[in-house]
Formats: sequence, structure tokens, C-alpha cells
Amino acid sequence: METILQSKTKTVIIGPEQSFVMIGERINPSGRKKLGLEMAAGDFSRVRRDAESQVAAGAHVLDVNAGIPDADEPALMVQAIKTITEVVDVPLCLDSSVIAALEAGLAAYQGKALVNSVTGEDERLELLLPLIKKYNAAVIGMANDESGISPDPEVRLSVARKIVQRAADHGIPASDVVIDPLTLAIATDSQATKTTLETMRLIQRELGVNMVCGASNVSFGLPDRSPINAAFISMAMQNGLTSAITDPTNAVLRQAILASDLLLGKDDYAMNWIADFRKRIPQT
Amino acid sequence: METILQSKTKTVIIGPEQSFVMIGERINPSGRKKLGLEMAAGDFSRVRRDAESQVAAGAHVLDVNAGIPDADEPALMVQAIKTITEVVDVPLCLDSSVIAALEAGLAAYQGKALVNSVTGEDERLELLLPLIKKYNAAVIGMANDESGISPDPEVRLSVARKIVQRAADHGIPASDVVIDPLTLAIATDSQATKTTLETMRLIQRELGVNMVCGASNVSFGLPDRSPINAAFISMAMQNGLTSAITDPTNAVLRQAILASDLLLGKDDYAMNWIADFRKRIPQT
Repeated sequence: METILQSKTKTVIIGPEQSFVMIGERINPSGRKKLGLEMAAGDFSRVRRDAESQVAAGAHVLDVNAGIPDADEPALMVQAIKTITEVVDVPLCLDSSVIAALEAGLAAYQGKALVNSVTGEDERLELLLPLIKKYNAAVIGMANDESGISPDPEVRLSVARKIVQRAADHGIPASDVVIDPLTLAIATDSQATKTTLETMRLIQRELGVNMVCGASNVSFGLPDRSPINAAFISMAMQNGLTSAITDPTNAVLRQAILASDLLLGKDDYAMNWIADFRKRIPQT
Repeated sequence: METILQSKTKTVIIGPEQSFVMIGERINPSGRKKLGLEMAAGDFSRVRRDAESQVAAGAHVLDVNAGIPDADEPALMVQAIKTITEVVDVPLCLDSSVIAALEAGLAAYQGKALVNSVTGEDERLELLLPLIKKYNAAVIGMANDESGISPDPEVRLSVARKIVQRAADHGIPASDVVIDPLTLAIATDSQATKTTLETMRLIQRELGVNMVCGASNVSFGLPDRSPINAAFISMAMQNGLTSAITDPTNAVLRQAILASDLLLGKDDYAMNWIADFRKRIPQT
């Protein structure tokens, strides 16, 4: 199954036969206080630079989050989208928990966006799915619902199935739903990653939809996090993960993704691997 | 299933519930001309240093290969074993294609060794298995036979099954057979790794024996090999690989192994991960 995202001029396909899609995570004021203060003050220069540097590093899509406390999030979302589309041509992933911000973003965006995200909660589904349909977008569905995040892969699968079915009720095809199987910190639960990996296997086998995850949650609280994130993403890619919200400027993680694509037969003649190597090692 | 290896004073267990076993590969003159020349001249100082540095880096077992053209390999194997056991206490993996060298090594070794390796070829099996039984050793079985290395995972599984059965005929339990599913270079065949990973899945499911591989073959011919080897080993560990012949002094690969153990629930409280981190980052 293929999920097609578009900017005004560019198409990106997420799918099991495609090379892995990196969604750049950096344009997000959570944990980046300076960025948030600047955006709230109308200064989008850092947004512009982050857009350029992530695409230069290999991001295929950019996540855009304008969630700043007490700010006019819908207006900031629109301004961020305008700023980014001035400097890069990749499709965007509109990221907010505020429906009005997503709606303003979808109205302003030209192309087919990915929306981040809806859960399996009935109320959220009924609020968001009509917007996804109206604007012909794709949506990330999180495998949790009113009862929280289950430690049981079968329960997460059932939440994912519910999201896909509810989307279909609204006229949204399964190919426009990208499921996040949820990644919790291994430091607080030694079984957390096995649960996520098993959830991926089940979703791949039973639903066949594309999947996305935040690749760095898994190492929260541990020292030297990049190699842990890298090992996780390699295992997850083997289980059907086709995209991730990540920092493409982190070389360890980016190389793990490129290496895994290569090993899974999605990089003929190692062309992507070698191109990235050449970018990193300036030729003399 | 657990494979138990022993030195005079130390036991190492290879098994699906155990942390991954790293078999240090450096004491091998292939591709290390200087080491070979020194060993042939009776200078084992580099062997001693390589033994110490690999164990310090985390090797649980050391591979010992004394294959030097025109040299007295059985005598060199015995001398290498003596040298290594003087300075480190880990079990050894005796590595040769020369039966006389393996027999001399097994006779000199005190403990339960791993022997590297036998193929599925009838002649090799009938030469080597009686020795394995006589010296109560464990053996690495390569999943190729008279017809070569098959691109079909089912055929590799059938070779592995034959080795396990033939070992049983000689009174050697399946727990003393460690199968190498064979890892070919991704640069020459984009499907090579998928074949190896699928072979691992089949062997894990149908035979349940331990598995080993050479972790660096996969990246042969490509630039910047360590991240490729690291991604491979993470995927392979998810498919039941329980040990590898590798260079534990290579931090990228070692960290991939430790991170994968952690993510697969085999490093409670991340103790091994944090211990390795502390070794690398000297505390002030």
C-alpha cells in the first residue's frame, strides 16, 4: 500500500517497496524554547534555516509544529507553512493537537499534506477525520485510545484497525492512514520495544498500512542515545516501518536508515548509501 | 537451547535468553600479513596483545586461527592457545580448515572449545564430527554443502538440518551445534541479506539451535562499512542470531550489539549499556 504526499511541485511516496521516508522533526518548539519565543515574536528565520538544513541532510518531508503556549497557534502554523514552502519544496506534515491550527494549516497548504495526528479516541476521530477528507490529506493514527497505551500488541492492533475502519467510514482510504504503533522508553520497561516490534509485525500482516514512529522515544533517559535509536530503527524497518519522524541531521540515525534500506534490498547498487557517504566525506 | 563453552575457569553460554556472545575475530593471520609473519617466526607478542585488547573491549570468546602458508599450523595453533590462555580466561574458538590443526588444538585446550567450522559436505562431516565428539567440543556448522551456497533459504535450512542430524548420529547434541546461515556481500547482490535474514527465521523456528555469523562480510566492497554491519547485526539479532565472530574493539558494532540486547529485553536496567558507556567516557 502506498501513501502519496505532495507539495505544490513534489511527490513523496511512503510504501513497502520505496526507500524509507524521513520526516524532519526539528521545526517544533517543544523542548526548543528559543525557537518558540522567536516564532511567537514573528521571527521565522530559524524555521527557515531548520527547513533548509533538514532537507539538505535528506529529509523527504518536514514536520511543522507551532504549539506555543498562549500564542495564536493557527496563525503561527500558517506563517510557518508559508516560510517553509518559500525555501524548500518537500511535502509537509502538519503537527498539532489543536484542531483549529490543523484546519488553518490545511486551508493554507498547497498539495497533499500528512496530518500528525489522530488517536483511536472516538471524539478525536469525529473531529479530525472530516477535515482529513475535506482537504484530501493523509493522517497519522496513533495506536492508543480512551483506555491509554496498551502493553498488549493485539490491543494496539485493534486500535489501529478501528482508526482505519473509521477513516473508511469517512471516505478516507487505508492508504491515507499511516499508523504509529507507539514507542515507549526501554529504560522504564525492558519489554517496551518487543511490544512495539510485535505490534509492527501484526499491523504489517493484518492491515498492510504504512507505519511511522518517533525514533528517539525509545532511548529516553539513557546516555549516548543515537546508537540505541539506530538499532531500534533497523529492527523496526525489518518489521514494516516505512517512515519515521526523526532528525535527519543526526548522522548515526540517518546512516542506520540508509544502511537498513540497502540491506532490505531497497537501494540498488548502494547508490543512496554511496551518495550520502560522498556528501559526508568531501572529495579531493 | 543453550550452547555451553568453557575455559579452565570460565563458562560462557550462548542462548536466546542470554546476552549476545561476541567472538573476537582478530587473532587470524588472513589479511594481517605482519601477524602471520610474526607467528611463523615464533613471536606471539601481538597474539597476546590482541587477546588482551579484545577481552578488555568485551569479547566473551576468542577465535584463534593460525592458518599461515607453509607453516606448521598444528604447532602454531597449540602455541597460540598457550599464549592466549596465559593472559585471558575466556573460552576459545579453534578456527582452521586443517583437521590436524584442529585436532592438535583440541588436544591442547583445557575446557570445552567451539570449533570453527564444518560444512554440510559429507566428507568434512565424517572427518570432523568424530573429533568434536572425542573432545566434547561444540561446532560451527556452515549452511553450505557440495552444491555450494544456495540463494534459497529453504535449501540453507536443509543443510543446517543435515548437519544437526549428522552430529546427532555421532552422539553430539543439537545444543553443541551453532549454525552459520552465511552472509554474502550486499554490494554484489541486493537480495543477499534478505536471504540470510529469512534463513535465520527458518532455522530459529524449525531447529531452534544457536546461530553465529561473520558480521562484516555483508558490507564487503562498500565505503564506511561499520554502520552497515551494525544495521545488519541488529536485524539479525531480532531473527535469532545469538553470537557473532566480530571485532569487539570496533565501537560502532559493539554498541549496535549492546543496544540490540537492550531493546530485545536482555539487558535489565540497561546495566551493560551503561557500563560500556562509562568505559568509553572516562568519569571525572
